[in-house]
Amino acid sequence: MAKDRRPRLDIKRGAIDLSHGAGGRATAQLIEEVFAPAFGASGGGDDFAAIELNAGRVVVSTDGHVVSPLFFPGGDIGALAVNGTINDVAMAGARPLYLTAAFIIEEGFPLSELARIAQSMGRAAKAANVRIVTGDTKVVERGKGDGVFIATTGIGVAPLNVAVSGANIRPGDSVIVSGSIGDHGIAIMALREGLSFEAEIISDTAPLHGLVEAMFASGAEIRALRDPTRGGLAAVLNEFAQQSGVGFRIEEAAVPVKPAVSGACELLGLDPFNVACEGRLVAVCAASDAERLLAAMRAHALGREAAIIGGAVEDAHRFVQMKTAIGGNRIVAWLSGEQLPRIC
Amino acid sequence: MAKDRRPRLDIKRGAIDLSHGAGGRATAQLIEEVFAPAFGASGGGDDFAAIELNAGRVVVSTDGHVVSPLFFPGGDIGALAVNGTINDVAMAGARPLYLTAAFIIEEGFPLSELARIAQSMGRAAKAANVRIVTGDTKVVERGKGDGVFIATTGIGVAPLNVAVSGANIRPGDSVIVSGSIGDHGIAIMALREGLSFEAEIISDTAPLHGLVEAMFASGAEIRALRDPTRGGLAAVLNEFAQQSGVGFRIEEAAVPVKPAVSGACELLGLDPFNVACEGRLVAVCAASDAERLLAAMRAHALGREAAIIGGAVEDAHRFVQMKTAIGGNRIVAWLSGEQLPRIC
Repeated sequence: MAKDRRPRLDIKRGAIDLSHGAGGRATAQLIEEVFAPAFGASGGGDDFAAIELNAGRVVVSTDGHVVSPLFFPGGDIGALAVNGTINDVAMAGARPLYLTAAFIIEEGFPLSELARIAQSMGRAAKAANVRIVTGDTKVVERGKGDGVFIATTGIGVAPLNVAVSGANIRPGDSVIVSGSIGDHGIAIMALREGLSFEAEIISDTAPLHGLVEAMFASGAEIRALRDPTRGGLAAVLNEFAQQSGVGFRIEEAAVPVKPAVSGACELLGLDPFNVACEGRLVAVCAASDAERLLAAMRAHALGREAAIIGGAVEDAHRFVQMKTAIGGNRIVAWLSGEQLPRIC
Repeated sequence: MAKDRRPRLDIKRGAIDLSHGAGGRATAQLIEEVFAPAFGASGGGDDFAAIELNAGRVVVSTDGHVVSPLFFPGGDIGALAVNGTINDVAMAGARPLYLTAAFIIEEGFPLSELARIAQSMGRAAKAANVRIVTGDTKVVERGKGDGVFIATTGIGVAPLNVAVSGANIRPGDSVIVSGSIGDHGIAIMALREGLSFEAEIISDTAPLHGLVEAMFASGAEIRALRDPTRGGLAAVLNEFAQQSGVGFRIEEAAVPVKPAVSGACELLGLDPFNVACEGRLVAVCAASDAERLLAAMRAHALGREAAIIGGAVEDAHRFVQMKTAIGGNRIVAWLSGEQLPRIC
């Protein structure tokens, strides 16, 4: 009732107020005028969505996104949330199909920025052929949040014969990364610290499910896949080591790092191995399949700079060790503190 | 590596710091020592979960939870998040099976409270026979959040012949509520305002999937189901009116409201029709089935006070009208502002 008599939202100059989270008319209007058009969804008005899943292994993953700042070179929190969750589902060897999105918005947040974020999410979902099927909006008082947080959940289906896990790795397996590491984290940190470089550092945020499909199509026996987000490559390798009870030996010179990222890391006192990517993956496969898998990855737009960086070894200590570029050896430690808060 | 040398978390006196959201060792420890035991999950260490779904219509729903305060008579944000998402899935006529949970925690939040919330979630999930299969933890700086926010997503399966929707309602249908309205919202508001009453007002937070199953087992033709959370009964009826293009005529005297809730509403200047419940549902069914459905609801512990409160009518204006207890008529408006921020 009276819905038609309510003036349209002033997206250019308006701001979120507590009524937009109240579940009443203002919430309905926000959905109708901001989210539904951005997501290409008609809404329907129910608090749930029915989804269709073909036979297979259903995979689900969830992520909260609190990146700060919300907009950065190469993306924004919206694209990051969509791609990040697509990637977690893809790392199970599954094709991502559906997303849900829960927004926690701070009172006073500009509608124009919310609309921009929603549109970015819509575009990212469309590009990956994934549908945002249901969502939720809550508003917290000024000073009780920070702009907008977005929690996304992804659902996908994997072929029944695909079962990758960090627990499947065997000594002798090869480790491949799909591209240069640390771009996303350094793009955010450079912006926060007000650093500028000759070559702008751009977030690598991208949906990796297409690359993963190409990798499985190669026929290589893939044991484990993971995207090195928070904690970076170091965290992934240490997690794999814990899960499979193996160690790793990595060649520093083989790991792709952009010169600008490497330089920024030195300036900021960071190790690129600890810095987040948002469009890269780490794959472990049988050594005999490594070249075939590498070729399949390099043939894909998002894997052109893929490289074999080392392998798994028997190691009761589950150490991740690196042969440095200058010939030494060092242990690649799992980040224990928080050098890079709110990177995703 | 070295995981075993890290001292255990001091859950009694410790607090969340930024490292717990960094995706490294501290995050892994938080999962291992707080979330995994509470959820009865072993973790496994992958960023996704594989789930099994039997044939049927798969239903998904998501909700962000920002209730303040976090602990209240009858529950806490943890139980609320689990039950709320279970209920959204149940309102599709589906059996909830799996939950995901994304935590956004403010730096400095006491570990003891986080553990208490996680345990409450674990208990609520276990009671409803639902598994929390995967999650995520982010930490924001002090002053950029408010204790803890929890976004949950629920996945369930409905029989293929069940398809309830707010769009299915026809003039002549009956409207039933499962119990007294407004308990949850008033429990929160009374706490916030420091009000006390002779009879303590307790949140009605509860999982409704069992009640819904009993309702379908009655054989009644259920057109629509919805839980009146934010916006209360008024919002549900107005949403149904919009979705189905009907009006509603409600008898105020037939709507169960506890005297303490009614008194608190007067004191606070609230209309119980706008106040959230977290363990009630509104059902619309064919009038010829109403008595049968009512009997099935009253036979269930969570529907003992169920009541037929009115019906749907032809109305081009889609008005929700109420015959008041004193014989007048008034329009039950959709809440347009935010009288009750952060109620769930």
